[in-house]
Amino acid sequence: MKELSERLRQQMAFLLEIDKEKFITRQTFLSDGKRRENDAEHAWHLAMMVLILGEYANEKIDLLRTVSMVLAHDLVEIYAGDTFAYDEEGKKTQRQREEVAADRLFALLPEDQRDALRGLWEEFEAAKTPEAAFARAMDNLQPTMLNAATDGISWTEHRTKLSSVLKRQELTPVGSKTLWELCRDQYLVPAVERGKIADDLAPEEKPVDWPQSE
Amino acid sequence: MKELSERLRQQMAFLLEIDKEKFITRQTFLSDGKRRENDAEHAWHLAMMVLILGEYANEKIDLLRTVSMVLAHDLVEIYAGDTFAYDEEGKKTQRQREEVAADRLFALLPEDQRDALRGLWEEFEAAKTPEAAFARAMDNLQPTMLNAATDGISWTEHRTKLSSVLKRQELTPVGSKTLWELCRDQYLVPAVERGKIADDLAPEEKPVDWPQSE
Repeated sequence: MKELSERLRQQMAFLLEIDKEKFITRQTFLSDGKRRENDAEHAWHLAMMVLILGEYANEKIDLLRTVSMVLAHDLVEIYAGDTFAYDEEGKKTQRQREEVAADRLFALLPEDQRDALRGLWEEFEAAKTPEAAFARAMDNLQPTMLNAATDGISWTEHRTKLSSVLKRQELTPVGSKTLWELCRDQYLVPAVERGKIADDLAPEEKPVDWPQSE
Repeated sequence: MKELSERLRQQMAFLLEIDKEKFITRQTFLSDGKRRENDAEHAWHLAMMVLILGEYANEKIDLLRTVSMVLAHDLVEIYAGDTFAYDEEGKKTQRQREEVAADRLFALLPEDQRDALRGLWEEFEAAKTPEAAFARAMDNLQPTMLNAATDGISWTEHRTKLSSVLKRQELTPVGSKTLWELCRDQYLVPAVERGKIADDLAPEEKPVDWPQSE
């Protein structure tokens, strides 16, 4: 029996540990409305979206880098838990909880891969590169698509307000103008019209690109 | 409201339809042994394994191509269902069922992406390129790792035989000699010793690289 190299032992320990991402439940329901999605399913869906929709990025993106980023972007939630996009209290401690989680999780890997994966996570969080902006756009578009498909179960459940939705979607047009317009016109405007998202904004408070009601 | 291009409409229809991959249950249990894994979680885990273990491929592989392949390799199961690796009856009709499913699912996409994704799936199935061989090795290694982590729940449940396991693992050393040795020494040999995999092979029927018992 061959001795396992320390490098490979570390890599396999990490790959087994991240199985726990499948236990982390999000607020979004799957398209059949029967159960909530978990982080691993979400990350897979984002990766498929990057492959299919990458052509709509505002700036040309490196696909491998962007796919790797979305695959890894929620790993820290294995220890930090999922913080719901509209949970204002949870969001106050989110960054600090996730930093601690990142230190602990990525430390399982050999040094070069620890730095590479942590770098991808930091890049996603900072949202400054075209790859990160597009990854963030996908991270906003995917749950919006699923929410719309379930006629807004999660929006209704949380009495989600348009002002909060628009705040969350701020990075979507930075990643892709085309996909922001899709998101707005196909999912958000109809959800507001159907009362699934509560319209708490006066006409003059709405973004300039929001369609005016008759 | 801007008209949605036909291309983008097709892409979004596909991306919503593949949400159903999350409903397809596999035989493998997650590492906590509490429930079975689904295809989307499995595909995400394989993609992470390609990123972390790609260096062990026998031949240099294109990482984006290999990650894309594992992300997409089980999509046809949305319509064809999961065929358990050791279900000999199901495997007789598997190819034909999956061809029909591929025709139907990939037809949702614009022609160029339909051909690209179908090509990746065919490449995975044919297992002739270094990328496909490595993807197949990951598709064998990942459930073996999870089975070992749960002390072989799924092996015990199905009274899995060593001869079947070794047949299934035939492509693992073709993709990565190093990871095949890991799989054999860390997972399979201990599982046989503990009676989790039934040893139906006489010493002379075992592969030459199988460790001899004392």
